[in-house]
Amino acid sequence: MADPTQPPPTLFLPVIIHQGVAYVSGQLPRVEGQLQLTGKVGAEVSTADARDAARICIENCLSRLTAALGEGVEITHILKITGFIASAPGFNNQGAVLDAASELLLARLGDAGTHARSAIGVAELPFNAPVEIEMVAAVSNIG
Amino acid sequence: MADPTQPPPTLFLPVIIHQGVAYVSGQLPRVEGQLQLTGKVGAEVSTADARDAARICIENCLSRLTAALGEGVEITHILKITGFIASAPGFNNQGAVLDAASELLLARLGDAGTHARSAIGVAELPFNAPVEIEMVAAVSNIG
Amino acid sequence: MADPTQPPPTLFLPVIIHQGVAYVSGQLPRVEGQLQLTGKVGAEVSTADARDAARICIENCLSRLTAALGEGVEITHILKITGFIASAPGFNNQGAVLDAASELLLARLGDAGTHARSAIGVAELPFNAPVEIEMVAAVSNIG
Repeated sequence: MADPTQPPPTLFLPVIIHQGVAYVSGQLPRVEGQLQLTGKVGAEVSTADARDAARICIENCLSRLTAALGEGVEITHILKITGFIASAPGFNNQGAVLDAASELLLARLGDAGTHARSAIGVAELPFNAPVEIEMVAAVSNIG
Repeated sequence: MADPTQPPPTLFLPVIIHQGVAYVSGQLPRVEGQLQLTGKVGAEVSTADARDAARICIENCLSRLTAALGEGVEITHILKITGFIASAPGFNNQGAVLDAASELLLARLGDAGTHARSAIGVAELPFNAPVEIEMVAAVSNIG
Repeated sequence: MADPTQPPPTLFLPVIIHQGVAYVSGQLPRVEGQLQLTGKVGAEVSTADARDAARICIENCLSRLTAALGEGVEITHILKITGFIASAPGFNNQGAVLDAASELLLARLGDAGTHARSAIGVAELPFNAPVEIEMVAAVSNIG
């Protein structure tokens, strides 16, 4: 769980695992702790840039989850992702933004990456991030 | 899972079931693939019309879930629904909108339809839909 | 489950428990049924006041859950909280608001209170509440 690029969250954890189900905290588009872009999708942030942000968010979900798995435990299936898209008035293409995260899950995990999802347009996100994604996944002992 | 009225979602699935818990993707008020109304509740969309939309959303949750169940598997209990209501500034009756979905679950499923829920007012939804509802449900083999 | 200060919810339940996982409905900052404050955080509601509201919301999550537990059943772990913060334009400190809820969980439950979480800024909440928090927790029979 040691990630020197991010201050350890002291008040909450990036991942909680219970009976083979992992709950991953909402992830922002941060690389090495730095938010990569800010603003509302449909205004300062283009759909293409928001899709890049969504890829980073879901990468962070996966890396957070992987870091939390004990030896011999692996992701068996993604269950659900929820994408919150900070949306300018009149922006209604939240699905296209979240598609970038869905594509990455399928490319990375194959059949194990299929998932249910919801795409939601919200008013504001922490630190003015354009996208936040949370994830629920099934994990289990292998071998 | 074949529903000729809707294009198959290729990037995500309407339902994922893991260890007897089904995660249903956020459903919009679509009938035969066509969104039935658009706009913000409290502005272009009345509370009564939004309640109609909520009924369609939860019907879609149920039909998606039913279509995903294998032979001999049934819904044993609704666990949680989350209703995202695209809200005009100052509209704070999200609960009344989601009540229509709750009523339908109780009417359709009886005791198995009781559920926890959250009603949230959001800025924008995909395709300018007024309501999106996601669901978590318990399913199990019968007999 | 009897709480004389609140009308019984007839259309949905405050808590559903399935296979040791409890889903707690979104809770508003109500004390004895009365909403303690209204408005958007970053405008009419200060961050400090919103933190007070978040504490009340999570207290209500805990008391709702405790009331739903049968004899000999206890909370074994908080799994996930989602904090929806009604945010004025430009308010991006949703995390600081939800921190108050996270702090309370750790203070009250110790190691069992660690949790995953998401902090989301939304346009409107029911009854113009500034904060709504929902919770998922693990519960089990004790020895």
